Amino acid sequence: MADTEDITPEQVEREQALYGPFTEVVRELVDATIRTQIDEDEARAIKDELEGIVERMRTRQLDGPYAVNNRGRHWGNTVVGLRNAVAPPLHIDRESTGRVWSSFHLGAAYEGPPGLVHGGVSALVLDQLLGEATGAGGRPGMTASLTLIYRRATPLGDLRGEAWIERTEGIKTWARGNLSDDEGVTVEAEGLFILPRWAREKPPQEQPTSFE
Amino acid sequence: MADTEDITPEQVEREQALYGPFTEVVRELVDATIRTQIDEDEARAIKDELEGIVERMRTRQLDGPYAVNNRGRHWGNTVVGLRNAVAPPLHIDRESTGRVWSSFHLGAAYEGPPGLVHGGVSALVLDQLLGEATGAGGRPGMTASLTLIYRRATPLGDLRGEAWIERTEGIKTWARGNLSDDEGVTVEAEGLFILPRWAREKPPQEQPTSFE
Repeated sequence: MADTEDITPEQVEREQALYGPFTEVVRELVDATIRTQIDEDEARAIKDELEGIVERMRTRQLDGPYAVNNRGRHWGNTVVGLRNAVAPPLHIDRESTGRVWSSFHLGAAYEGPPGLVHGGVSALVLDQLLGEATGAGGRPGMTASLTLIYRRATPLGDLRGEAWIERTEGIKTWARGNLSDDEGVTVEAEGLFILPRWAREKPPQEQPTSFE
Repeated sequence: MADTEDITPEQVEREQALYGPFTEVVRELVDATIRTQIDEDEARAIKDELEGIVERMRTRQLDGPYAVNNRGRHWGNTVVGLRNAVAPPLHIDRESTGRVWSSFHLGAAYEGPPGLVHGGVSALVLDQLLGEATGAGGRPGMTASLTLIYRRATPLGDLRGEAWIERTEGIKTWARGNLSDDEGVTVEAEGLFILPRWAREKPPQEQPTSFE
């Protein structure tokens, strides 16, 4: 398995150029699988074709999940992963103050109640945003606690999220953030992030810059 | 668009028999998209084939997300949806006391830190479990607040989740739950669920039994 260190920037760029668009098509397929109303025979034929495709893709693959094999690259991440069709994905802008923000779209795959974003999806996205805020501010940590306050239902569609570092104390960092639609904030979040012991014991230059 | 009322139990069963296995293949494809190491030419060829498949599936499809068009069926749901490849999916057992539980597997698509379940995925799963507990206990509501306490990192793999109703007060229901691996509890959750106003105004027989 190739570690990030073994891969040239050119190889990373090639992989990005190939699997960015590839994964977008898989996201389309996930959406179409929820919404399609094609004939049963056609659906059965497509299922067989997909089985063949999966078999071809599995002839050569990583033994385990992505980040285990590619430390430092987050392309398998559930929220931002370039190669993860579960991820919307979020593209997150960041400032070194720890402020981060993102505009994104949530479609049929993120539905809870009819037409609304699943409450747990809001939590998923906010955990990522708060974690990225701690990393952007040079205070990376793993989530120790997370509280979500749902002000009102979040409609599926175009949304925005933001997060920032609220305060710090030793190895602890508190971050806050929210999701909003065109009408304003729908969900607020506060989280506590802690640098894990195994990371603390490493020399500063080997400490991770992010856990997301 | 066909509403649940227009569909016979036989049609529901046929759709389940077809799209259950279909979506399993799409889940395999999502996993393979993260992990494959096939040649670039082969990946490009497969991308073209997938584009063709998506186009065929979109020739006839629902206008919007699933639950909007099929009220009462949760096959589009992000956590339990039979037709949603983002969903692991969870199969949840329930008692009328409000106790619910589920054994499930989280693979590469749910990775945050290397080899570990994304903290937000734990929140996503627990929101669903707590919401199902309120529904199972005859106290359905939408998430008003949710607090997660991360006791330790959750490894990718075979996991278990459970939830139950803690207490009730008028339209409010508090539920608690946790995720665990073979070694015990990794994440704890507490949530407040409230029956929304629009649902309260309906006569009892028209009130929803679940918001998940």
